[in-house]
Amino acid sequence: MTQTIAVLPGDGIGPEIIAQAVRVLEVFQQKGWDIQFQYAPLGGAAYDEYGVPYPEFTQNICRQADAVLLGAVGGPQYDNLDRPLRPERGLLAIRKDLNLFANLRPAILYPELANASTLKPEVVAGLDILIVRELTGDIYFAEPRGISQLADGTREGVNTMRYHESEIRRIGHIAFQAAQKRNKKLCSVDKANVLETTELWKQIMNEIAADYPDVELSHMYVDNAAMQLVKAPKQFDVMVTGNIFGDILSDEASMLTGSIGMLPSASLNETGKGLYEPSHGSAPDIAGQNKANPLATILSAAMMLRYSFNQDGFANAIEQAVQSVLKQGLRTGDIYEDGCQLVSCSEMGDAVVAAL
Amino acid sequence: MTQTIAVLPGDGIGPEIIAQAVRVLEVFQQKGWDIQFQYAPLGGAAYDEYGVPYPEFTQNICRQADAVLLGAVGGPQYDNLDRPLRPERGLLAIRKDLNLFANLRPAILYPELANASTLKPEVVAGLDILIVRELTGDIYFAEPRGISQLADGTREGVNTMRYHESEIRRIGHIAFQAAQKRNKKLCSVDKANVLETTELWKQIMNEIAADYPDVELSHMYVDNAAMQLVKAPKQFDVMVTGNIFGDILSDEASMLTGSIGMLPSASLNETGKGLYEPSHGSAPDIAGQNKANPLATILSAAMMLRYSFNQDGFANAIEQAVQSVLKQGLRTGDIYEDGCQLVSCSEMGDAVVAAL
Ligand SMILES: CC(C)[C@H](C(=O)O)[C@@H](O)C(=O)O
Ligand SMILES: CC(C)[C@H](C(=O)O)[C@@H](O)C(=O)O
Repeated sequence: MTQTIAVLPGDGIGPEIIAQAVRVLEVFQQKGWDIQFQYAPLGGAAYDEYGVPYPEFTQNICRQADAVLLGAVGGPQYDNLDRPLRPERGLLAIRKDLNLFANLRPAILYPELANASTLKPEVVAGLDILIVRELTGDIYFAEPRGISQLADGTREGVNTMRYHESEIRRIGHIAFQAAQKRNKKLCSVDKANVLETTELWKQIMNEIAADYPDVELSHMYVDNAAMQLVKAPKQFDVMVTGNIFGDILSDEASMLTGSIGMLPSASLNETGKGLYEPSHGSAPDIAGQNKANPLATILSAAMMLRYSFNQDGFANAIEQAVQSVLKQGLRTGDIYEDGCQLVSCSEMGDAVVAAL
Repeated sequence: MTQTIAVLPGDGIGPEIIAQAVRVLEVFQQKGWDIQFQYAPLGGAAYDEYGVPYPEFTQNICRQADAVLLGAVGGPQYDNLDRPLRPERGLLAIRKDLNLFANLRPAILYPELANASTLKPEVVAGLDILIVRELTGDIYFAEPRGISQLADGTREGVNTMRYHESEIRRIGHIAFQAAQKRNKKLCSVDKANVLETTELWKQIMNEIAADYPDVELSHMYVDNAAMQLVKAPKQFDVMVTGNIFGDILSDEASMLTGSIGMLPSASLNETGKGLYEPSHGSAPDIAGQNKANPLATILSAAMMLRYSFNQDGFANAIEQAVQSVLKQGLRTGDIYEDGCQLVSCSEMGDAVVAAL
């Protein structure tokens, strides 16, 4: 039976980088992999066409697809829209709609790009961290929330951090299993000295640790984790944390590599269905100029092959092709350095396809 | 009239580092400054003596004092105490009791210690950021909170993020005024794309910006701020943010310098009364060994002179004395490097006193 990938180019550089990732996937299609692509808009592009950032048209395609490949959403032209219409609402809505509770964000330093980091080489050489972020709970989604006017006419803002133990448990299992396949070290990040919600988080992590005796579990306060990522990032193997702390720490960890244009991400539900997107944003400043780095999106497609289609062979082939174009010295502007060859977004795509 | 400093040595290395800071303050006392010191326990030390981390004895002394000088709280022997008895509860309680809503945390890279940073010299040379963190509101203190058992016997954790516009306004004014005295750039950090509480934060910052036309206000999402601190920290002058984001970002920013043993902090109320403490913790592993770095505490005393006693001259003298001992090559273990002279905590105190 033909499987389906929902392709959501999104905004800004989204369409350019998605085009290159689709070309890469088409290589396997041509070799006989039975797959089809269905395109739909998300974010600003969806607002332009349908007046909402996650329209029914897109919902239907994504719900029926076996996996979703996303470019990026957002742009300055949407900044003044009402909150529920803004591009990032589309992203939050699709995460919730497809129940994509497990966000996997690798922070890997490619040896060829070691100079791009602002950290000293000895601190980041060989860096390979996987951040597992809970993505459908926490202060992102819980009620009550909002800005309200009090009796005296003044305003107050409220949001609610909430985790049910089942939400913590399921992301915990994902994180322990990921650690089992790597270096068997899991660091759970909380603020249990202040926030009861994260005290429960810590308790549940300790409970399920019994199921994974081969994994070494540690706990760290979020403020300390933000420090330790700067001080000695290589102490970490897998980190697991809630939605808001994960938002902050995964971005910090990505930037340790200096080449966020290389970093993919996966957001999975219970059945392995997932949404795959680069860790970087929609970069409106260079959109439409064929300058963007498509490698994070291409590597996201590799994660998709691995997690949603069990095609480890294809995934490895893509990852090796990316390494080989880096070795050849090809670089888009964001990762360019002296002595390398500056290429466009589509030329980078050409090179990956050729390397396959 | 004699003014009073409440001195809270606290736990771990607290007593050692406090002793050196008090010696430094005594230099000015001997020169005729009319000041007295009143000692009281906080944190674990208070639990040991009174059974609670912020006892009435300490409350009375701190409420009556003109300023509070704190070492650090916490230690592994208190880890299994009930939540309300733990050392950090003493810290949260004194902040709330004295209404210390404005936490000022400088992240400064001393040229003599540039090598201590894990970041490349060109990225951090000359770094001088001031983080203004709101300290008595947000998810730290708001209700409802707690872990509760649901009807089906499962558990759920809840905390509440809440800011009233008046809380945002008063910390905003502190931040704008701090920026006026520095490079006139203020970056307000929020997560307004997701959290309504921080959307109100952003609105209020924009409102009060009108009072400070000479300050350039910008806004940044917290995830991006965590990245930008790694990527290009020198873009920042003053940053202002809420309690939980400030907890995370101020620790990240401190660690950019690599020498957190050098960084002081001030927590102020509306009248300029404040609590002054080093940014680092109680370091139980080296407690009682006369190895700790007292400079962050000594520099906290300098902040106290400046903010609570309007003694800018004394404050400057201390800061210059610290710079001069660094220039002499004296280093405690945490900031030691080849070619320098390793000194103990008390020898470092001797040197600062001598330099005064
Ligand atoms: C755009 C925003 C809502 C989103 C988030 O906060 O989750 C983004 O920062 C991310 O990490 O994917
Ligand atoms: C000890 C803890 C409660 C405290 C905080 O979170 O505020 C500490 O991390 C700090 O930043 O002073």
